[in-house]
Amino acid sequence: MTELLETLRALLGPAHVLTGDDAAGYTRDWTGKYAWTPLAVLRPADTGEVAGVMRAADAAGVAVVPVSGNTGLAGGTHAEGQLMLSLERLNRIREIRAGARVCIAEAGVVLAQVHAAVAAHGLSFPLSFGAQGSARVGGFVSTNAGGSNVVRYGNTRALVLGVEVVLADGRVLDLMGALHKDNTGYDLKDLIVGAEGTLGIVTAAVLKLVPAPVAHATAMVALPDLTTALGLLNRLQGESGGLVEAFEFMPDRYWRRMARFRPDIACPFAEVPPVTVLVELGSAAPAAGVPGPDGSLPLTADLEAALAAAMERGEVLDAVIAQSGQQRRQMWVTRESAAEITLNVVPIVDCDVALPLDRMQAYLDAMAPRLAAIDPGADLLYIAHLGDGNYHYTVYPTTGDPAVIEAIRLAIGEEAVRLGGSFSAEHGIGLSKQAEMRALKSPVARDVMRAIKAALDPKGLLNPGKTIG
Amino acid sequence: MTELLETLRALLGPAHVLTGDDAAGYTRDWTGKYAWTPLAVLRPADTGEVAGVMRAADAAGVAVVPVSGNTGLAGGTHAEGQLMLSLERLNRIREIRAGARVCIAEAGVVLAQVHAAVAAHGLSFPLSFGAQGSARVGGFVSTNAGGSNVVRYGNTRALVLGVEVVLADGRVLDLMGALHKDNTGYDLKDLIVGAEGTLGIVTAAVLKLVPAPVAHATAMVALPDLTTALGLLNRLQGESGGLVEAFEFMPDRYWRRMARFRPDIACPFAEVPPVTVLVELGSAAPAAGVPGPDGSLPLTADLEAALAAAMERGEVLDAVIAQSGQQRRQMWVTRESAAEITLNVVPIVDCDVALPLDRMQAYLDAMAPRLAAIDPGADLLYIAHLGDGNYHYTVYPTTGDPAVIEAIRLAIGEEAVRLGGSFSAEHGIGLSKQAEMRALKSPVARDVMRAIKAALDPKGLLNPGKTIG
Repeated sequence: MTELLETLRALLGPAHVLTGDDAAGYTRDWTGKYAWTPLAVLRPADTGEVAGVMRAADAAGVAVVPVSGNTGLAGGTHAEGQLMLSLERLNRIREIRAGARVCIAEAGVVLAQVHAAVAAHGLSFPLSFGAQGSARVGGFVSTNAGGSNVVRYGNTRALVLGVEVVLADGRVLDLMGALHKDNTGYDLKDLIVGAEGTLGIVTAAVLKLVPAPVAHATAMVALPDLTTALGLLNRLQGESGGLVEAFEFMPDRYWRRMARFRPDIACPFAEVPPVTVLVELGSAAPAAGVPGPDGSLPLTADLEAALAAAMERGEVLDAVIAQSGQQRRQMWVTRESAAEITLNVVPIVDCDVALPLDRMQAYLDAMAPRLAAIDPGADLLYIAHLGDGNYHYTVYPTTGDPAVIEAIRLAIGEEAVRLGGSFSAEHGIGLSKQAEMRALKSPVARDVMRAIKAALDPKGLLNPGKTIG
Repeated sequence: MTELLETLRALLGPAHVLTGDDAAGYTRDWTGKYAWTPLAVLRPADTGEVAGVMRAADAAGVAVVPVSGNTGLAGGTHAEGQLMLSLERLNRIREIRAGARVCIAEAGVVLAQVHAAVAAHGLSFPLSFGAQGSARVGGFVSTNAGGSNVVRYGNTRALVLGVEVVLADGRVLDLMGALHKDNTGYDLKDLIVGAEGTLGIVTAAVLKLVPAPVAHATAMVALPDLTTALGLLNRLQGESGGLVEAFEFMPDRYWRRMARFRPDIACPFAEVPPVTVLVELGSAAPAAGVPGPDGSLPLTADLEAALAAAMERGEVLDAVIAQSGQQRRQMWVTRESAAEITLNVVPIVDCDVALPLDRMQAYLDAMAPRLAAIDPGADLLYIAHLGDGNYHYTVYPTTGDPAVIEAIRLAIGEEAVRLGGSFSAEHGIGLSKQAEMRALKSPVARDVMRAIKAALDPKGLLNPGKTIG
C-alpha cells in the first residue's frame, strides 16, 4: 500500500493524494446514512491522470471508487479502505458547439455551471433536480439521473450523446461522438451511463442541448385526488401538443411536514388540498415570447384557460399561476425543498419506485395495509414526478431495528414490481438496494450483468459491491 | 447434423424445418448482393420454441442467424451453412395499452401492422421508412433502424422501452418493462437494440407510442444549395417550436436518376433545382386540427407563411405545399422510391454515413476529389435525412473490381470519421461493413465489444461474423 501511495503521489503530486484528516471531507455521503474511511483520496487533473491511477490500481489490485459531486442517495461512493477517485479537478467545459447543439464537459463540472454556460448561447441542457448546484457531470451520467423535466426530455441517458471512459486497466474508451445516428456496433455509451462507475470511470461527456424555452407557464394546482391529477396531465399534454415540462405531485401530508421543518414555506392554498401539483409548460417557439393584447404570454394565457375550464368541470379545486419569474422560482422552491424536509431524520426508509401510470393509485392503496402490518405506527411521505410514474416513497419507522427497516424496504420494492414497476426509478442501486437486486431483479438479468461486469473489470476493482454486487 | 434436424423437427413440427427447395425463399437478401444456402430454416411459433431452438443449437454447437423481414442492407442475415431462425410466426400484437402508451408486439409483426393497430387508438408509433410494409419488429429493433422521423422522435432505440430476448443458451431475458424510468442495473435493453442478433434473439418488444398528430403540413421546397437548406431547417424548427418531423434532402441528380428509372414520378418543379427538400411538420395539439377563417389548417398556413418569407429573402426558390392527404402521399412517394431507384444496379457501393450538421457540405466537397482519384468515371447519388446529418451516399463504379469497390467504400467511411462522423448511421454493420469496423472503429471499443460478445455468447453461435466479426 505504501508503495502504491508513493506511485500515486509521484503521478498526481502529493497535494492530490489525501489521507487521514486531509480526507475528512470524503468520508460520508451527504445524508449521513453512509460513512467510511478511504485508503486515500485521489484528485487527478485530467483524463490522462485518471488513466494513470487506474493502471497503478490495476497493478496493485486495489479497488477504486469514483466520486464527483457526492450528492447520490444510494451509497454509491462508499469506499471503506478503498481508493476514492475524485473527479472534481476535471472541471473544464471543453467546448460548446451551438451549431451542433452540444456541450462537451468534463466529469467534475457542476450541473448548474452547465446550465449557465449554455444559456449564454440561447440553449438549454434540460436535466434539472434539487442538487443541481453541487451534482457533477460524472455523477449524473454514472447514475443516469432523472429529475423534474424527464416527462418532456427524458433521463440523463437521453441527454448524453457521448462519453469518455477510463477502463479498469487504464485504457481510455473514447465514445465522444456528437452524432444523432451512429450504428457502428454495440451501444457502449448507454452501458456506461447508469453503471455507477462499476464498468469504467466517466471523465467527460457530450451533452445534448435544446433551444432554450422563450416562455414558461407555471402553476400550483389544487386537486381532489391522484386520478384527477393524471387526467389533468393527459389533457394538458394533449392541448399543448406535448409542452408539459414538469408535473410534480405533492399530497397533503407533504405540506404538514413542510410546516414542521420549513415553516417559512407555505402551501399556496388557504386550505391544504388533498393533492397539489406543480405544473410547468415550456415553449421555444418565438411566438410564445410575444405578449398578447392583455399583456400576458400566450402559454400562460393557455394554461390559465385550461385550468379555468377544469375548475368549471369540478376537476380542479383551485389554482395559482405564476405571474413573474420570481413567483415561478418560489413555486419551485416548495418542490426543491423536498429532499431537505424528507431525509432529515433517522430511522428512515427512503425509496424511489416507478410504476405504469395507470397503477399509481393502486400502489398507494396496496402499500398502506402492507406497511401497517409491518410497523403500524410508521409515518409516511410520498411525492411524485407524476408524468414519469415515479414516487419518492419514504417511510419513517417507529424503530431502528434493521429487520423492520429491511422488511419495509423490500415491501416497497416488491409491491412496485408486482404492479409492473421498478424498485429503483432514478436513484440507482449503489449499496442501498443490493437486497432488492437479489430479491426482485430477474436472475437471468443479474447473470448477464455479472458476465458483463466480469468481461470489463475482471479483477473487480471498479466500485466493487455496487450495482451488481 | 441429421440428429440436430430431427430434434428440431420434433420441437417445431416438420412443416417448420425447411431444407433444400423449401428454403429457397430464404437464400438471399432483397438487394441480391448477398446469397447463401442455409443448413435449414426454422420457423418457431413462440418464444418458448425459440428458446428450444437455441438450447438445441447450443448443445450441437451450430450457429443460428435470426431473420424477420429480411429488408436490411448490410447482409445481416447471411447464413451460409447455418441455421436460419425466422421470427415470422411470432406475429401477435400481444397488447396495446393506450393509457400507458405502449404496444407490445412480437418480433414477426410487420411495422405497417403496428402503425395500423395503434392508429385505431388515436396513437402513433413514429418509426417510418421505405420498407415499412415488410420490415418486422425483430429486424428494426435488432438493427436500431432510423428512417424519416428521427429528427423529431429518435431512432428505434428511443422508441423501444423493453425487449424480450432469447440468449445463446436458450434462457429468456425478460426486459419487457413499460416504464419511463428504471435504474435497476446496467442498460441491457439498449445493448440488445442494434446488436444485429449477435447477443441474443429479440422475440418481442415494448414499443413507445405518441399521440397521433392531428395535422401535418407537408411541402416540397426548391433551394439553391445545402447550406441554405440547413438554415431553413433551423428556422422552421425554431419557429414551430420543434414540430419538424422530416426534412429530406434530394439533390438535382436524384431527379435525373428518377427520370431514368421511374419516369412516372416527376420533380414537382418545372426546372429541377439544385436542392429539393421534402419538409413535414406535425402537431398533436387539438387546435392544430381546427381550420382557420380561410379553411386551411393552422400548421399549413404557418408553413406557407414561413416559406413565403424565405422566398422573399431569396433563400427559397420555389415551394409546393400539399393541399390534401393525397398530395402529401404523392410527395412521400418521391422520397420513398429512393431505395428502388438507387439499389437497382451492380456494381454499387451503397453507404450510409452520419456527420455533424455543420460539416455536411464539407463532406461532399472532400469526397468529390477522393472519388475522382479512385475511379474518375464513377457515378454518384446521395440523398440525406438532413436533420440527422445522415447521407445515403451511393457510388456506381465503372468496374466490378473488388479492390476498387473496397477503396471507394473505405474512402466514404474514412472521410466521415475524419470529419467527426460515423461510417454507419442507420443501416448497421452486418457483413457489409466489417472492413470499416476493422479500419475505422476505435480498437478499444472493438475490444470492449468483443469482451461483451464473448461474455454473452461464449461459443459464438449467435449470428457469427456480424457486427463485431
